[in-house]
Amino acid sequence: MKIFLSDAEFSARRALIRQRLNERNLDSLCLFGPTQVFYLTGFSFIATERPIGLVYHAEKDRIVLFIPFLEREHAEESHSDEIRTYREYPGDTHPMEQFANLLREIGLAGKRVGADSDGYGGGWGYVGPKLSEVISADVVPAKEIIEKTMWIKTPEEIGLIRESCKWGNLAHRLLQDYTAVGLVETDISIRASYEASMAMINTLGPDYRSTKWGAFAAQADFRGQIGAQSAVPHAITTNARLRFGDVLVTGASSEVGGYISELERTMILGKPTEKQERFFNLMLHAQNLAFETIKPGSRCSDVDKVVREFYEEKGITEYWRHHTGHTIGFGMHESPFFDSADHTIIKPGMVFTVEPGIYVPGFAGFRHSDTVLVIENGIEMLTYYPRDLEDLIIFA
Amino acid sequence: MKIFLSDAEFSARRALIRQRLNERNLDSLCLFGPTQVFYLTGFSFIATERPIGLVYHAEKDRIVLFIPFLEREHAEESHSDEIRTYREYPGDTHPMEQFANLLREIGLAGKRVGADSDGYGGGWGYVGPKLSEVISADVVPAKEIIEKTMWIKTPEEIGLIRESCKWGNLAHRLLQDYTAVGLVETDISIRASYEASMAMINTLGPDYRSTKWGAFAAQADFRGQIGAQSAVPHAITTNARLRFGDVLVTGASSEVGGYISELERTMILGKPTEKQERFFNLMLHAQNLAFETIKPGSRCSDVDKVVREFYEEKGITEYWRHHTGHTIGFGMHESPFFDSADHTIIKPGMVFTVEPGIYVPGFAGFRHSDTVLVIENGIEMLTYYPRDLEDLIIFA
Repeated sequence: MKIFLSDAEFSARRALIRQRLNERNLDSLCLFGPTQVFYLTGFSFIATERPIGLVYHAEKDRIVLFIPFLEREHAEESHSDEIRTYREYPGDTHPMEQFANLLREIGLAGKRVGADSDGYGGGWGYVGPKLSEVISADVVPAKEIIEKTMWIKTPEEIGLIRESCKWGNLAHRLLQDYTAVGLVETDISIRASYEASMAMINTLGPDYRSTKWGAFAAQADFRGQIGAQSAVPHAITTNARLRFGDVLVTGASSEVGGYISELERTMILGKPTEKQERFFNLMLHAQNLAFETIKPGSRCSDVDKVVREFYEEKGITEYWRHHTGHTIGFGMHESPFFDSADHTIIKPGMVFTVEPGIYVPGFAGFRHSDTVLVIENGIEMLTYYPRDLEDLIIFA
Repeated sequence: MKIFLSDAEFSARRALIRQRLNERNLDSLCLFGPTQVFYLTGFSFIATERPIGLVYHAEKDRIVLFIPFLEREHAEESHSDEIRTYREYPGDTHPMEQFANLLREIGLAGKRVGADSDGYGGGWGYVGPKLSEVISADVVPAKEIIEKTMWIKTPEEIGLIRESCKWGNLAHRLLQDYTAVGLVETDISIRASYEASMAMINTLGPDYRSTKWGAFAAQADFRGQIGAQSAVPHAITTNARLRFGDVLVTGASSEVGGYISELERTMILGKPTEKQERFFNLMLHAQNLAFETIKPGSRCSDVDKVVREFYEEKGITEYWRHHTGHTIGFGMHESPFFDSADHTIIKPGMVFTVEPGIYVPGFAGFRHSDTVLVIENGIEMLTYYPRDLEDLIIFA
């Protein structure tokens, strides 16, 4: 079982990107976003005010990573051909000036340079010039070159996402088992995440490495979606104590080789009321409709449309708050989206979350999220946690 | 005891920002960064591919928040005068076009508009135009208006940081108590963070609210800086098992009303070797020198210079990897920095981390980090965890 990407995977990525640069008549590609840099090199690090940059010279087929001295070791483990470091930020010469010097040195002045953004975007107290302000070159927005390459997951990537689903499943199982009236949400979340993480670490052994900053390898939580607050789609925890009758919306995931998955469930503490049951079943029905609509050749917008038409038909459009889903992989939300305005053609190898939600203000929210893989004739469910109401009632 | 910012604090911030806009002859300020938006309004949310924007019209003294429909409830709790929502991203009309319409509607076409960045920077699959591409206005980089206002902490902000130090201290105490040979770092970190978080939540009661996304209210961990890996300043966890003789570099913090602190310690598992002791004491000495140099009227660069001169004098410059510290508050790293090129004058009310490190490749790393407040005649230590070697040896 693979729990990280192979060298061959990175070679294949580079070849693909090179081909796309050629198609767009670009001499090189500059990347500043951590996700984009990881995609091409596997370089993972904690992004701070210290800028990083990557330049890929297409003709020479050469990747140079430009990083703070502090990150040397992580860069050395990555799939790059050369590492250039700067001492510190802000430092005597602004890192972006040094990066521009590097571009000139490798012959990119006056050339067509694709870039995922016009300079380093990072927060954390960073201030700096745009790339186009420090180099005389034709800086062309090209974020989509890598982004669109990421759309179709390879067998290796799918393998990592599958593995992530397993440990997310365990974390969620424990979360459900530990859920009880009177406990603080944080208490339940941390205990479930702790045990799932330790099981995962001890099962996968020393080859298991985190690529992201965070305590948990596997995690499940409520994130504040408890009782009436479950109607706030992106609630932030209030450390609420669970009460009898609460509707709970959960989330679970784990990271394997940089890849994640998403599993969310609506649970009910105690025997559901008629109203709770009605909205739960409407949500489940909407999700089923979405599942049935996802197939190669359809458009992302078709999936969202089916869901929205169902809401119209049932008279619950006032409880709609967000589109039906997004792609997932290295990033938590990637493009394309199951959005009414995203007409991207669905293709085999895409991995989506499917998560139509119903949010009744002051009452409760209802949302499941499952991660699915698009295959030849439809989808394969990658998450496999029970979805029916009877499996999600907590008698405590 | 206050555990969140008062209404008066937000009024005072707005007045300050208004004054600075007038000084710079700017008609308004557009903000896209979550930290900057929080500073002016207290709006906290989970940043995704869905862009947010804020426009502050100086003359009208009016803040309009422009957010995805999904975030309505969080926006309603914030200190803004009006909330405009868009349905979804990408949606039928790009949110940035809608934001530009809003700016035109409130009369900002052709005006001087300050902005923290030229459009929404968020990752997560977001793609969009620059602000300057969608509105005919003089878009002036103005990130520093809020950033520089954040430099001097108010008594309320200092109160929150003080409270954060307490719970970081508890998390670190538990981390040290639970550290033992043979355990996986993650096991120790999560247990300590879990107990500290529950103690904090139960002590502070229902008024305690998280403004950030994450399971822990208080947290302590090793983040991979274990044994030889402690020499990697920003290591990422490898889920290593602790061994006798390991040098461990830790980190602890907690969030109170959006504000954080930083506490890091070097600990040694078992009786220190002479070499370990020597480097530990050099690190401690460097930190003491930094403490003595921080005073109103000195420059940030003076502090870094003193540390670097000490490294030169002791012949350990090859083990230098990063500058001496940074400001901290709402953000983990804020400007200004204790960096050789940052000549900002130190003033009372600034809150810094002080954390010179010594990193000996293949052997070990040594770093304490303390959070200090600049006062009239020097500093006040806000963190108060023991710093001496004898208190940081773990006999297990």
